[in-house]
Amino acid sequence: MTTPTQLPAASTDDEQCHTTHGYITDKERYLARLKRIEGQARGIARMVDEEQYCIDILTQVSALTAALRGVALGLLDDHMKHCVLEAAQLGDEAGLAKMQEATEAIARFVRA
Amino acid sequence: MTTPTQLPAASTDDEQCHTTHGYITDKERYLARLKRIEGQARGIARMVDEEQYCIDILTQVSALTAALRGVALGLLDDHMKHCVLEAAQLGDEAGLAKMQEATEAIARFVRA
Amino acid sequence: MTTPTQLPAASTDDEQCHTTHGYITDKERYLARLKRIEGQARGIARMVDEEQYCIDILTQVSALTAALRGVALGLLDDHMKHCVLEAAQLGDEAGLAKMQEATEAIARFVRA
Amino acid sequence: MTTPTQLPAASTDDEQCHTTHGYITDKERYLARLKRIEGQARGIARMVDEEQYCIDILTQVSALTAALRGVALGLLDDHMKHCVLEAAQLGDEAGLAKMQEATEAIARFVRA
Repeated sequence: MTTPTQLPAASTDDEQCHTTHGYITDKERYLARLKRIEGQARGIARMVDEEQYCIDILTQVSALTAALRGVALGLLDDHMKHCVLEAAQLGDEAGLAKMQEATEAIARFVRA
Repeated sequence: MTTPTQLPAASTDDEQCHTTHGYITDKERYLARLKRIEGQARGIARMVDEEQYCIDILTQVSALTAALRGVALGLLDDHMKHCVLEAAQLGDEAGLAKMQEATEAIARFVRA
Repeated sequence: MTTPTQLPAASTDDEQCHTTHGYITDKERYLARLKRIEGQARGIARMVDEEQYCIDILTQVSALTAALRGVALGLLDDHMKHCVLEAAQLGDEAGLAKMQEATEAIARFVRA
Repeated sequence: MTTPTQLPAASTDDEQCHTTHGYITDKERYLARLKRIEGQARGIARMVDEEQYCIDILTQVSALTAALRGVALGLLDDHMKHCVLEAAQLGDEAGLAKMQEATEAIARFVRA
């Protein structure tokens, strides 16, 4: 991957979007969702600690997995509409590199 | 929830294993894994708060999803080898009910 | 569902159910679903051959994936309620072996 | 990858890429993979017809699911690197529309 010839201040970090990250506008909402996810994880630990019924715990693990999937899809959507779009408009090379990176992340996610 | 020490008088509560829950032997290990999962969720929130790169966050969400999947498969395995096995040995009706319950939980999980 | 009262004639083949496979009662229905799935696969090939729009093809791949998931969950349900239940009633060892085998198959499926 | 310099003749059909579909270069390879997938589906039907062991059938369903996932990820990759990239270079509006469409297709796929 090559970085476009004009300025990212820190061009050492070619992993970065050239503007702010897409999710920043929704940052509070993401943080709230992740706070809830953290609480769900803590709740599952408590259920195990209290030796609650396995199936009930599994149901909560499924709910947490679905919540995470929602966060992943949201982040991906934001990423595509900001970083990837922007890279594509900088030129084919930058665009293709971001597309490749995004599809690799999607592949990791669907195989997780 | 407490685990009955006697055989259940009331089969009304067919949600319960008749002995202790299977995962109890591994309880500390499950708690350690869930503690780690909770930490992963907190780490992802911190990444969002610090506006780290979306793809790196997605990678961590994938890792957390995989960790949860591991917990789910472990709980399911324990459940099958304890609660379901035991129910099956109590008779067809009890066994079928537990099998049905387990496959429904699996369906919820794979569709999560 | 009948429980065998005799020991299996061929205990060498412990991969087999001791009675007929569970899905046999629904065999025609499974065959019809799989026929449809085969047709879906052929339809996707035709879409590619006709160079139809990628997103429309992806949508059909998702539909086919969901159909396969349904077949997998159905087979699993039948397997649990017949082979696994029966094995569990033959004794702990036979039951645990089938439970182990089933959870391994589930793990392969959810990671597929 | 060439970028169109002209406006699309038929902008009425905004479902289409303005050049040929991305996968066309790999068309023969996709067709070969889909032919194999169709054969896998037929093989699973035959296993059911012959009443083979459920777990073995499940294993084949998992393999087929993984093969489909590979096709989906390949199509998505091609789509992003051709149609989506091209749309992004036509302008924000066209780019965002294609990004939205792609993330919706991904969401359908990961929830399939």
